[in-house]
Amino acid sequence: MSHPDLMADPDLRPFGPLLHVAWADGELKDEELARLREVALATPWLSTEARERLAVWLDPAAPPSASDLRTLLAGLRQAAGTLPELKRRDLVGLGAALAAEGASGEVGDALGALSDALGVDGRGALERLLPTRPPEPAAPAPRFDPDALAALFDAPYGAVRARARGFLADPAHRLDPGASTAAQRERVRALLLELADAGFGRLAYPGVTGEEGDDLGAFMAAFETLGQGELSLLVKFGVQFGLFGGSLFFLGTERHHALLPQVATGELLGCFAMSELGHGSNVMALETTATFDPETDELVIHTPSESARKEWIGNAALHGRLATVFAQLEVGGEAHGVHAVLVPIRDEAGAPMPGVRIGDCGEKLGLHGVDNGRLWFDRVRVPRANLLDRFARITEEGTYESPIASPTKRFFTMLGTLVAGRICVASGAASASQVGLAVAVRYAFARRQFGAEEGPELRLIDYPLHRRRLMPLLAQSVAARAAVARVRARYLEEHDAEDTRELEALAAGVKVFATDHATRALQAARESCGGQGYLAENRIGPLKSDTDVFTTFEGDNAVLLQLVGKALLLDFRKAFFDDRVFGVLRFLGAKASRAARGSAVRNRPDTRAELRDPETWRQLFADRRDELVEGVAMRIRKRLGEMPAEEAFLAVQTHLVAAARAHVEAEVLEAFLALVDAAGGAEREALERQCGLWTLWRLEEDAGWLLENGFLTGAGARALRDEVDALAAECADDAMGLLHALRIPDACLGAPIAFGDPAER
Amino acid sequence: MSHPDLMADPDLRPFGPLLHVAWADGELKDEELARLREVALATPWLSTEARERLAVWLDPAAPPSASDLRTLLAGLRQAAGTLPELKRRDLVGLGAALAAEGASGEVGDALGALSDALGVDGRGALERLLPTRPPEPAAPAPRFDPDALAALFDAPYGAVRARARGFLADPAHRLDPGASTAAQRERVRALLLELADAGFGRLAYPGVTGEEGDDLGAFMAAFETLGQGELSLLVKFGVQFGLFGGSLFFLGTERHHALLPQVATGELLGCFAMSELGHGSNVMALETTATFDPETDELVIHTPSESARKEWIGNAALHGRLATVFAQLEVGGEAHGVHAVLVPIRDEAGAPMPGVRIGDCGEKLGLHGVDNGRLWFDRVRVPRANLLDRFARITEEGTYESPIASPTKRFFTMLGTLVAGRICVASGAASASQVGLAVAVRYAFARRQFGAEEGPELRLIDYPLHRRRLMPLLAQSVAARAAVARVRARYLEEHDAEDTRELEALAAGVKVFATDHATRALQAARESCGGQGYLAENRIGPLKSDTDVFTTFEGDNAVLLQLVGKALLLDFRKAFFDDRVFGVLRFLGAKASRAARGSAVRNRPDTRAELRDPETWRQLFADRRDELVEGVAMRIRKRLGEMPAEEAFLAVQTHLVAAARAHVEAEVLEAFLALVDAAGGAEREALERQCGLWTLWRLEEDAGWLLENGFLTGAGARALRDEVDALAAECADDAMGLLHALRIPDACLGAPIAFGDPAER
Ligand SMILES: Cc1cc2nc3c(=O)[nH]c(=O)nc-3n(C[C@H](O)[C@H](O)[C@H](O)COP(=O)(O)OP(=O)(O)OC[C@H]3O[C@@H](n4cnc5c(N)ncnc54)[C@H](O)[C@@H]3O)c2cc1C
Ligand SMILES: Cc1cc2nc3c(=O)[nH]c(=O)nc-3n(C[C@H](O)[C@H](O)[C@H](O)COP(=O)(O)OP(=O)(O)OC[C@H]3O[C@@H](n4cnc5c(N)ncnc54)[C@H](O)[C@@H]3O)c2cc1C
Repeated sequence: MSHPDLMADPDLRPFGPLLHVAWADGELKDEELARLREVALATPWLSTEARERLAVWLDPAAPPSASDLRTLLAGLRQAAGTLPELKRRDLVGLGAALAAEGASGEVGDALGALSDALGVDGRGALERLLPTRPPEPAAPAPRFDPDALAALFDAPYGAVRARARGFLADPAHRLDPGASTAAQRERVRALLLELADAGFGRLAYPGVTGEEGDDLGAFMAAFETLGQGELSLLVKFGVQFGLFGGSLFFLGTERHHALLPQVATGELLGCFAMSELGHGSNVMALETTATFDPETDELVIHTPSESARKEWIGNAALHGRLATVFAQLEVGGEAHGVHAVLVPIRDEAGAPMPGVRIGDCGEKLGLHGVDNGRLWFDRVRVPRANLLDRFARITEEGTYESPIASPTKRFFTMLGTLVAGRICVASGAASASQVGLAVAVRYAFARRQFGAEEGPELRLIDYPLHRRRLMPLLAQSVAARAAVARVRARYLEEHDAEDTRELEALAAGVKVFATDHATRALQAARESCGGQGYLAENRIGPLKSDTDVFTTFEGDNAVLLQLVGKALLLDFRKAFFDDRVFGVLRFLGAKASRAARGSAVRNRPDTRAELRDPETWRQLFADRRDELVEGVAMRIRKRLGEMPAEEAFLAVQTHLVAAARAHVEAEVLEAFLALVDAAGGAEREALERQCGLWTLWRLEEDAGWLLENGFLTGAGARALRDEVDALAAECADDAMGLLHALRIPDACLGAPIAFGDPAER
Repeated sequence: MSHPDLMADPDLRPFGPLLHVAWADGELKDEELARLREVALATPWLSTEARERLAVWLDPAAPPSASDLRTLLAGLRQAAGTLPELKRRDLVGLGAALAAEGASGEVGDALGALSDALGVDGRGALERLLPTRPPEPAAPAPRFDPDALAALFDAPYGAVRARARGFLADPAHRLDPGASTAAQRERVRALLLELADAGFGRLAYPGVTGEEGDDLGAFMAAFETLGQGELSLLVKFGVQFGLFGGSLFFLGTERHHALLPQVATGELLGCFAMSELGHGSNVMALETTATFDPETDELVIHTPSESARKEWIGNAALHGRLATVFAQLEVGGEAHGVHAVLVPIRDEAGAPMPGVRIGDCGEKLGLHGVDNGRLWFDRVRVPRANLLDRFARITEEGTYESPIASPTKRFFTMLGTLVAGRICVASGAASASQVGLAVAVRYAFARRQFGAEEGPELRLIDYPLHRRRLMPLLAQSVAARAAVARVRARYLEEHDAEDTRELEALAAGVKVFATDHATRALQAARESCGGQGYLAENRIGPLKSDTDVFTTFEGDNAVLLQLVGKALLLDFRKAFFDDRVFGVLRFLGAKASRAARGSAVRNRPDTRAELRDPETWRQLFADRRDELVEGVAMRIRKRLGEMPAEEAFLAVQTHLVAAARAHVEAEVLEAFLALVDAAGGAEREALERQCGLWTLWRLEEDAGWLLENGFLTGAGARALRDEVDALAAECADDAMGLLHALRIPDACLGAPIAFGDPAER
């Protein structure tokens, strides 16, 4: 009996992929076939005739001929060719996508059952069917060992990173950008629970959940690695285990820690409810109140005005049951400033608790899988024990006690919990930027457009302009990664120390650096892929939309830079305020001597050798920072006689931020050079090239200021430009090896264009 | 009988808004009430008990008490407060959004019927219920007449712009960013037909559709104005009337023009199918073939390879029936280069035509309402008459004829049709950037965060940093608008001229300028609104995602800049190639004399008066351009001895692009100054402030180059920075007046944050 052409038959088309695999593998045992028949013919939505036609393909006695299979394969490839890549990731998905419109849901279910019955590994099989990973785009053989570099990047958390990559390697852990917001939220919740099951959550609570291997550093490294995957999942993961769980862990005491096992398993999902509609950055001015009622020994949580509603709270719109609510604590009529209180917001069934009103923030630019919501509290009562009371407590007698006398200091100690979160956001931004750039760079090695009259067109990577667009940003991704590693290491050492202000400023600076970088890098990646960059299946678009808010949440970048700037001025202010006259003199003296040193000794680099010398980089970055900080200080001083301090600060705001940026870049350079130093041989050289490209490119973008202030000559500026061009070309040769060292799982690259130009297939 | 609390009753909640309006208006006649009862009680999904409770509210004998109504209103406002703004736009939508999950579809239908029965104007009524437009954010009274400025901006197309704004003013013409891609595509199609009905389409075909008032300039002005609305609609509008219709109009002859009436009404939807998977920028290398078959007097359209498939084609995935296909024409075995041929791709019923395969590009970063698709042709035959034959034809005898001898020239003449499209894209980008900045600037006048210890917090606009983020970009939006107006006017005058190369280069430059601007401005707008900027209801997010591709389509910006750069070099090349020795000498002579003039006479501005003088701006911009162009020319010359011309061009690519950018900015400045000159009195002063801010900010960003090349002194660079700060403050005082002059309809601002800080309500 001749086999009907499955692909020509709209009813049977969805079975095409599975049946091809089943027969082409040739390993079908009779009982498997029988089982397949049973399941296939049970699908309720097939007409009797369609079932009869299908039965022909399931007859053990009459296997399809080689030519039947060829026809099927050709039809399959053609049909699949009109589908977006994402629908071609597994046999079931592909089959469902081939179904008539509207039917794909039930078809998918039926095919799922079939595929289980068949026991085929959908993905591997599909790869043979529709090869999607041609060889790497051709690139020069790396001049270093990518695996050695990878080991360096991974250290000291290789094991947990490998586990996280295992999770990411499964394409089923990618989201469908076409799915509805509701579907994405549910999917992300399910994936979060998978991560919890795999033990990633409890890493964050060393010594509490009592499991071996808990390790905050490992948690942070896992977070960074997961940043190569879906960012909705990353953010929900951060809200649940980092912010919510972290608030219990860092601000709470034993009775709160008792909840952490449930938090770690995802049994208890929660919120970190700090921001309010009226106050996102200026959280010291939050309006929500927590008033102690000694009569009932309870705290009364209340939203006194519309601007006091909790806003943008992750996990609030749908899944959170408990919230860490930041509120102005009042005990015995006395205000004690912002404290954190646990407030149940939903019951087991998911209904809002009495007195709690919950809203949905609605559609966002990205992060569709995160359920951000609003919360209002109408005099909600919780036991006194719900106060997270590590840094301040209410005694049984109803009096307020805190080991930290200054309310401001107390507040900032509590905010210290955000430091880990900021480092994590920075790491996520760095990872996401790597993925987007990886897609764009790989495409640049494959895509050809324009070129010589004869012969093949040029690859995009052959264009100096294109290298300029991508290579400095790829180097900056390495810079961000190095900066994150350095501040993470410091955090793990120092976060329990007495004075963490420097650490906090550093974390803030790295957060600004990495997230601003991600915005810029992903924009460049999008544009440098042309039309392909705009298709969601090529990943850069969703990455862009998802990361866009990283510059805003966990501390708005413009606000954080001012925090960094103010920390820089501390020394100066101390000298100035403590000891008015001598301080200024001392300060001016220091400046004068630096200026003298500057004009006499200052190296104004203008040769290749000088421009490629790390000592030059260090010197320029440090001098620039110092000069800018001094400039701000002098400007403030000049104004202090004429206006109040706040006004003086306001007047120099843009200068303060410029100084902060220069400081952050100087710190990043130190981190980058530390990474270079940690490497040996050819890897060291490769990293030094990256570091040089990044540094010179930063200097080039700031050439105006450097020239104006005598750090650079005109000839030096020209030389700088040439070196950036030259290093961009050298780094292009290293690029594929470098990307290899970042070990981004194929499933995360995902984009068809990451595996060659589809036009060449 | 006491009235049940509608809002406390999940079943009846959806009826709350309508019933409040009905009773509160107090004008319900008995028969209306009876009709309402009838419709309401017929809703199939209410239980008997629920209907009984509802009936209480519909009893003419027992109207609700004032207190019943107050309770209802309070509940309504509270419930509505948890919903995103978009769901609060009309009574039916609001009611549907209040329904239990999953039910909102059928509830919406039922409420629609109810609302019709009631005959209430949903929107006006809702505004009273939930006031959404508080007074404008407080700002200084403008020092100029915004209406006079508006008239200037609108001229000479005030009437058609007003009509377009009438369309935009209807909130029902906004899309729901939460709707599915499929729903958005259908909605955009419906809106497109509304625009066609309103006569906007036929404007594009003066003298052909035969209606009075057809006017290409008016079409382009309408396009610009519609750029303040939904961009999916704008792009579909551009594809249908501009690209597709424009190809018939400009490349076709009478028999093709005969189709234009149907195109103008939207009866015949079509595609402009130029780009292929393999060639988006290098369209001269398209692979699709159109082979003349003299036997049948037909053209055979064929896709010879996968890279030849038409890709990203607007209107192709769903709605287009006819496509203008660009293909390599072969007649009698001879290749004649790319030509345009009309190919039917779908029949009346919407099924693909035989031999045509159609795919869907799938999800994109934005423009969800545009159905971009892929097309493959399998030896599809169309009559010879389908060749768009204004510039080349096949005679009845089957021979090829063209009035333009050079194939390259012929090709570029055909591409000339893209010039209007590029100007339109630029105008759309300018308009979209205005809307996004308007939202951010208005919010900056309302939002308060941080500030003095006592008294209210400062408004964002009070921060120098915030003004720096927004004011130069707002000025740049005006610059883009002025540049568009100027190139449009030139286009209308010159597009039929013999040599349009200069016009083409200018259009390309303005397209690059305006679209790069939109990307940057919308990013800044998003970030400067903090968390609010990330919510879709605040519009900036969707605008960002939609405009992101403007830098890519209708000519990729990096490619267009090279076109601009090469046009700039034409003069030099002519001199050089025509007359090798003398040319160079002449050129060097010119350079030497300019250099002499430069060092002797060159004004290196460093005072406020100089920096605020338009003559200084003009001089600096022109000198910078000339110097850069000369630099590129010299670099090429140096290399020409050593390598082929293409290689030499490749080696100087980044310099070429820098020269092109400088040229484009010089042209934009001319346009801006022309706008200033067209204004009088206080408006002129206001525009001059904007122009000054824009110019000095551009110079500041390029200070490195200016210092390096002796156009600026260190003191000048410092003065520049101070002037930018000062002008940003002055322009902030003008900002609300300026926005008023842009006449953006409220419905387009749409965003709640554009009407004050929600926290202040
Ligand atoms: C998707 C998303 C998820 C979030 N998740 C959470 C969460 O789970 N829990 C939580 O508590 N919060 C969360 N947030 C809130 C987030 O932390 C805040 O949005 C953020 O802190 C910024 O506050 P804001 O939005 O009020 O902006 P504002 O503070 O109002 O700032 C608005 C703008 O003004 C600028 N600005 C402010 N002050 C100054 C100044 N002094 N000088 C110059 N410029 C200034 C800022 O740079 C910014 O551009 C989330 C937000 C989003 C968007
Ligand atoms: C949403 C959307 C709608 C569209 N609608 C239509 C339509 O209706 N009809 C139609 O015909 N087309 C349409 N297009 C296609 C669009 O015009 C092309 O995407 C565009 O022309 C760019 O071509 P490409 O994507 O092939 O990019 P490429 O040409 O491959 O360019 C890729 C990258 O390489 C860079 N590059 C290329 N050449 C050079 C060089 N010489 N030097 C340096 N860098 C270079 C570019 O800057 C770009 O960043 C649409 C595209 C999109 C995304």
